Amino acid sequence: MMILKEENYHKRNVYAVELETAGRAIPTLPTYSISEVSKHSSKEAGIWVIYKDGVYDISEFVDKHPGGDKIMMAAGGSVEPFWMIYGVHKNPDVFSMLEKYRIGNLDSMEVEGKVENVLDPYSNDPIRHPALRPCSSKPYNAEPPPDLLVDSFITPQEIFYVRNHLPVPEVDLESYELEISGVGIKDKTFSMENLKNLPKHSITASIQCAGNRRSEMSKIKAVKGLEWGPAVIGNAVWSGVRLCDLLAALGVTGNVEGKHVQFEGLDYDPSGSYYGSSIPLYKALDKRGDVLLAYEMNGQPLSRDHGFPLRVVVPGVVGARNVKWLSKIIISEEESTSHWQQNDYKGFCPSVDWDTVDFSKAPAIQELPVISAICNPLPGQNVYLNDDGKLSVKGYAWSGGGRKVVRVDVTVDEGKTWTVAEFSDQGEAEHSRHWSWTLWQAEISAPPGSDSVEIWAKAVDSSYNTQPESFSNIWNLRGVLGNAYHRVKVNIKKRK
Amino acid sequence: MMILKEENYHKRNVYAVELETAGRAIPTLPTYSISEVSKHSSKEAGIWVIYKDGVYDISEFVDKHPGGDKIMMAAGGSVEPFWMIYGVHKNPDVFSMLEKYRIGNLDSMEVEGKVENVLDPYSNDPIRHPALRPCSSKPYNAEPPPDLLVDSFITPQEIFYVRNHLPVPEVDLESYELEISGVGIKDKTFSMENLKNLPKHSITASIQCAGNRRSEMSKIKAVKGLEWGPAVIGNAVWSGVRLCDLLAALGVTGNVEGKHVQFEGLDYDPSGSYYGSSIPLYKALDKRGDVLLAYEMNGQPLSRDHGFPLRVVVPGVVGARNVKWLSKIIISEEESTSHWQQNDYKGFCPSVDWDTVDFSKAPAIQELPVISAICNPLPGQNVYLNDDGKLSVKGYAWSGGGRKVVRVDVTVDEGKTWTVAEFSDQGEAEHSRHWSWTLWQAEISAPPGSDSVEIWAKAVDSSYNTQPESFSNIWNLRGVLGNAYHRVKVNIKKRK
Repeated sequence: MMILKEENYHKRNVYAVELETAGRAIPTLPTYSISEVSKHSSKEAGIWVIYKDGVYDISEFVDKHPGGDKIMMAAGGSVEPFWMIYGVHKNPDVFSMLEKYRIGNLDSMEVEGKVENVLDPYSNDPIRHPALRPCSSKPYNAEPPPDLLVDSFITPQEIFYVRNHLPVPEVDLESYELEISGVGIKDKTFSMENLKNLPKHSITASIQCAGNRRSEMSKIKAVKGLEWGPAVIGNAVWSGVRLCDLLAALGVTGNVEGKHVQFEGLDYDPSGSYYGSSIPLYKALDKRGDVLLAYEMNGQPLSRDHGFPLRVVVPGVVGARNVKWLSKIIISEEESTSHWQQNDYKGFCPSVDWDTVDFSKAPAIQELPVISAICNPLPGQNVYLNDDGKLSVKGYAWSGGGRKVVRVDVTVDEGKTWTVAEFSDQGEAEHSRHWSWTLWQAEISAPPGSDSVEIWAKAVDSSYNTQPESFSNIWNLRGVLGNAYHRVKVNIKKRK
Repeated sequence: MMILKEENYHKRNVYAVELETAGRAIPTLPTYSISEVSKHSSKEAGIWVIYKDGVYDISEFVDKHPGGDKIMMAAGGSVEPFWMIYGVHKNPDVFSMLEKYRIGNLDSMEVEGKVENVLDPYSNDPIRHPALRPCSSKPYNAEPPPDLLVDSFITPQEIFYVRNHLPVPEVDLESYELEISGVGIKDKTFSMENLKNLPKHSITASIQCAGNRRSEMSKIKAVKGLEWGPAVIGNAVWSGVRLCDLLAALGVTGNVEGKHVQFEGLDYDPSGSYYGSSIPLYKALDKRGDVLLAYEMNGQPLSRDHGFPLRVVVPGVVGARNVKWLSKIIISEEESTSHWQQNDYKGFCPSVDWDTVDFSKAPAIQELPVISAICNPLPGQNVYLNDDGKLSVKGYAWSGGGRKVVRVDVTVDEGKTWTVAEFSDQGEAEHSRHWSWTLWQAEISAPPGSDSVEIWAKAVDSSYNTQPESFSNIWNLRGVLGNAYHRVKVNIKKRK
């Protein structure tokens, strides 16, 4: 039934390709010793790095590095241990860009033993379900097939998309502790047993990555980021302790304006920095905000990929704030200073590029805008009309901030006529606490005699916000917030 | 400097035109007595009405009446007293439609004395500021010139748009009482003196009509509603009593889910029905929701047009819920049953028309979507470039639900390049309580040698929702929620 041209749909294998020539010695270039390279580790002295046998002066590049100032950790030394962690660099574009900054070779007598024997930090990552489609393997990032995704209102944990920024930490439940500290409270730690003794609450909420549907945006113009399809979203029942209860018990009350709750995970990079993020304090303290410290997903303990033993679930808010492997909660006058809060997960004007971007000028993404996607049929699929000559279409729609999807419109004639989709499930919640997605389906009359049609879908939420029509005017250099109309072209086949 | 072709911009005078021929006796048609007509006042017997000397069988029309079942108040009798109130009917389209249902003449012996001597219910409406541009006079609806509007972050009361559904009530302050009743509370009344003795709070908030910018949507296809321009929004400092304080003092607490707060005004129609509307109870009880019972606007008592002596201000929510001349507050398990809550102020799919619309299928508009407008220059205006060859553009942007405007993008080349506007003022509030609009300005390089350019503006709010590109895919039969990109074409003139 389903014939997906997968090679057209995800160009995933690009990350597996390694240009064998990068970093090889080039006989015409000068030779430098490791100690000479190590002197070039500041803006004043110039910033040099080593990759295999190559020496590179990347002084001009550091301000443009999409990963921010983490690149300075490699200044005067080898980038290789960092690239073991940030596997996204093993990409032909990165290698060819690096070679542009080539200035010489490393002294060949020194090369042996240069790189410390770094064990693969990803070697302890869990085994994943074969239905997941990896977008990168180190760190592991994967989404399920879209048509499988919308077959269930509650997404099974095994096929729920995984977005890891770093290796999956291994947590010993016996010694695990959650630390809570910050302005206006006394420091306190909780074991998992302490937390499980507190009242248990459950919410049904979707979590979506800011990069969902990025591969459509990158067709307009290249963006930096994982080439995600439309399945980087899932809907689950999360159970755990309400953050508002915990904070109230610790005496966090009074004026919430301008304050933040920072979260820190147990996943860390080679410099020892942990993944971190923050949300406004009012969201955390609002009983109707439903922020959970969750230890269960769909009635089961969290799997390692989803944050075992404890993660934050901030319903209505971008996945990046739903910190996994939670170890610290800090009440602060400031947002998290992490890279992922300050220099990533922000939206910009389509005319802003890597030369002009100023990350301080845009707010960190919190609530996400309204989105929808057609998940069945899939792009390029051969479809058969039903006995009434109609095309069956299924998908999801969702909006951030607790806004409920109130309508999904579908067209096969570029908007000349729209069909209102039926909702197969959206749960019972109302506007302002509607955290779940909406699954929808429509039966649409295809224009008679067409060999192919392009299906468009757009959703409207309970604030009557709707999706922008095309990606060209919402394009942004990080490829986030890709919520334009979803457009899927399929072939119409006659039954024999 | 400003040369506005006003006749192209607002076709306002259409409502003043009265076809003198409508309702005249037609000698070839049969004659009916008043008592005969009066028997036809139900769907079973057919629905007849009288206008001047004409008798009409409108049985087929009643289900399509844009004003809902209020038309049944005239069944079996004359529509004239109702049209005195609902002045919108004095419109050539309505007269010509009515004549299509003509079946006969009223017995001429009876005509004298038929219509009760109804005094013009609008004769006591206040005198308005001459800068306001009326869109209809009975009821009075008017907006200021857009370029005047964005010259001030706080909109003066005198030029703040007026949206009246009925005649302006005359309220005697001495005998005025606000009644509060409903589920879970004991009935209570408050005089203005009682209310003014409670703690006084102020908020700065914009209020916008759902029909703002309707005249642009109606260019795609006709809609039913006042032909508003882009100035049906204003920003003011509102002062009064917080509704959450008042309700908490009356003991309204506990489970808010699914409950509503109904508001009733003192403005009434010929059947004795008052204007009414409702909001969800959680919004009213949320201290951060900032719902006010306001008695001051910009430090002055409310004017009669803006709801003297007391109105509701529901920040972030459509104007229709900000009930003026407030007389009753009712806590209820149900939304307001008023026409304006149930059969108006709702959004529909572009393919839904008056034959297929089912008002029960769409939620009442509460929070409004993100919007922006270019207010200077005006459409068709002749503009001069500044010394740098740039075009100065000014406007406003706003979003409902307390969402802050985080960016406004402006283009003069159909989106090939976008310029990020500077914010001249947006106040200090943060996301979730940002009730004010944002005033913006941009200096844009016009393509060299052009005689004219089309300026586009689009805003992004703190949920990263953005505006849809065009009206065609958000068109709806009532012409509400018109938040597509604003597009203004101007002529570029050379300085002599």
